[in-house]
Amino acid sequence: MVFTKLITCSGPVNIAVIKYWGKRNEELILPSNSSLSATLNQKELKTVTSVMASESFSEDRIWLNKRYKQRKGCHDPLLNCKLHICSQNNFPTAAGLASSASGYATLVFAMGKLFDIPVGELSQIARLGSGSACRSMFGGWVKWEMGEAEDGRDCKAVQTHDECHWPDIRLLVLVVSDTPKETSSTSGMASTVKTSELFQHRVNHVVTKRLGLIEEAITQQNFPVFAQITMQESNQFHAVCLDTYPPIFYMNDVSKSIVDLVTQYNAFSREIKAAYTFDAGPNAVIYTLKESVAEITSLLLHFFPPSTQEGCFLSASIFLKGFSFQIDSDQGKLEALKAKVNVPRKVDALRYILLTSVGDGPRVLSEQEHLLSPVSGLPK
Amino acid sequence: MVFTKLITCSGPVNIAVIKYWGKRNEELILPSNSSLSATLNQKELKTVTSVMASESFSEDRIWLNKRYKQRKGCHDPLLNCKLHICSQNNFPTAAGLASSASGYATLVFAMGKLFDIPVGELSQIARLGSGSACRSMFGGWVKWEMGEAEDGRDCKAVQTHDECHWPDIRLLVLVVSDTPKETSSTSGMASTVKTSELFQHRVNHVVTKRLGLIEEAITQQNFPVFAQITMQESNQFHAVCLDTYPPIFYMNDVSKSIVDLVTQYNAFSREIKAAYTFDAGPNAVIYTLKESVAEITSLLLHFFPPSTQEGCFLSASIFLKGFSFQIDSDQGKLEALKAKVNVPRKVDALRYILLTSVGDGPRVLSEQEHLLSPVSGLPK
Repeated sequence: MVFTKLITCSGPVNIAVIKYWGKRNEELILPSNSSLSATLNQKELKTVTSVMASESFSEDRIWLNKRYKQRKGCHDPLLNCKLHICSQNNFPTAAGLASSASGYATLVFAMGKLFDIPVGELSQIARLGSGSACRSMFGGWVKWEMGEAEDGRDCKAVQTHDECHWPDIRLLVLVVSDTPKETSSTSGMASTVKTSELFQHRVNHVVTKRLGLIEEAITQQNFPVFAQITMQESNQFHAVCLDTYPPIFYMNDVSKSIVDLVTQYNAFSREIKAAYTFDAGPNAVIYTLKESVAEITSLLLHFFPPSTQEGCFLSASIFLKGFSFQIDSDQGKLEALKAKVNVPRKVDALRYILLTSVGDGPRVLSEQEHLLSPVSGLPK
Repeated sequence: MVFTKLITCSGPVNIAVIKYWGKRNEELILPSNSSLSATLNQKELKTVTSVMASESFSEDRIWLNKRYKQRKGCHDPLLNCKLHICSQNNFPTAAGLASSASGYATLVFAMGKLFDIPVGELSQIARLGSGSACRSMFGGWVKWEMGEAEDGRDCKAVQTHDECHWPDIRLLVLVVSDTPKETSSTSGMASTVKTSELFQHRVNHVVTKRLGLIEEAITQQNFPVFAQITMQESNQFHAVCLDTYPPIFYMNDVSKSIVDLVTQYNAFSREIKAAYTFDAGPNAVIYTLKESVAEITSLLLHFFPPSTQEGCFLSASIFLKGFSFQIDSDQGKLEALKAKVNVPRKVDALRYILLTSVGDGPRVLSEQEHLLSPVSGLPK
């Protein structure tokens, strides 16, 4: 009888508040600084990956988002069987959301289950696929400790707070209508490490301090402190990109308008109620609290409305994803806000707005969710 | 008989390559770092200012660019007479070109002539009007030495090289079609000093080194070194603006396209032949050498053409200012360049392109150029 084993898992996306940018060792993917992120709820954003090992397979085969890819020649001594791997995201890869973190984390988690590797070591393996993938190996709030050892043995992800710790935290993912980024993260950060005069100062004198402060803010559920550090970190990450030679620009004019909108919203509120953060692209993520979601979303709909659905604020809208309620905020206050916020109104600047929360780490899924047929070993 | 005296002077604009951003003393306008600029030829960009003192004037009156302004209540012990001042730029104030430097420099120079103040002290007075104005008190290449004294007595501008030193240097001023900047330099730099964690590192560890290197490059007429430092300085200035909280954005998407165009042009040329620099707004200044002007201008006309004059490359064009020759570059090479340079083509992204060179400092003008009538003391 032919030996086969099939495992299907799902894994989450994460959004950093203390940014990873720069490696001290390119080969081992050892970062220049520790970083910290929230793991996002898999209801809205996840990767599902089936891994099947079989003695009957003649070669390793990979299907990513329904497209067959030639497998690259990496030979894992663990494997006597050939493997079939099938992986899909429940969000468009081209949407500009980092899919490599959830992709590698889910693959490594599924492989770990297939080969019974203790979960404790897995974040170090995920890191080798894509640095920030190690933070997607856990739910809640996750710190990627840079470690000190040259061989990277103390470079790993750890959960600082679980997904139940701060239940009111919400994230609005704003997908900007734009072509994908031109500078890859890998080449971009290498260029920053090599050429930015400000980068070493950030790494040596700023990040550790901020990491301590933001961990404390999360522990205390102190949103204003959490939010300010989040925004300052995003600003500084893009500042060192700009200090790179030649400079790297990830934010565009729409990104800046989002920054201005959040800044003015906070000023009007006389309290920091929202925090923007940008990764290696123009898309924004806004961290906020449950109570402010409707207000901020109304503002976003006013300044960055979709052309096809103006005035249509239904939860079923394809422009608003993840909203299980009608956007129904205080109209008087909203009108005052709209009058105060001075950013250019731009139709179709955003492709969509997705509401999500902090969620759990990778999961093993049931047989019903296999992406590969247990009989043929091919995608269903 | 009534005592009257009338003096008319002109003064230049300057474009910094080592940027001034941040004050160590706000009241005395003492900068956090030394800076260095080229003074631009007054043929294209200048301020003309007439200053007239008369015992018969009943009040101090100021006309700036043909508009009468109420004079602010500053009382100068030097004055027994009342003053009439009339000042005009030969370029639009709203064009986004820093007119405060030429404006204050010319005013202070003219007042110095009126009251016979030795020219050596004048840069310190100009500085009090607008920091960078002190660099417009001299022609050629001018360093604003930050000094060390608390009272600012050693904080002054000095000429490092005169306007004849590097005759082949040219500047292309690219005026971007956009609304004026939202954050004034004064409040922006105060905010940077207060909130940017990278700013102090720049000031303490980067600028002095770059200043030494670029002075040497100018002395040796080493364009590639000069150009690289110029671009890195511009990048870093905008990086610390972005690291400010809330962040300050002066460059927009057109500015970034200009950066990309220059970067790719240099890469294609296998030699640094052009350097961009941006001040507190989206407009670019490109430093280059005489031999590259036609090529770069052709590229700019291709990627950022005016809608009204596409294909019209006449020197008399209102889109091309300061060009005394037809743009006539190697067509084969230009086609290869256009094919290689990958930036989005944008019609009407630029308002105009102005070609200029390094020029002399403030001058006393002849009687024919008075802006005030010697008889009435009113604008002609």
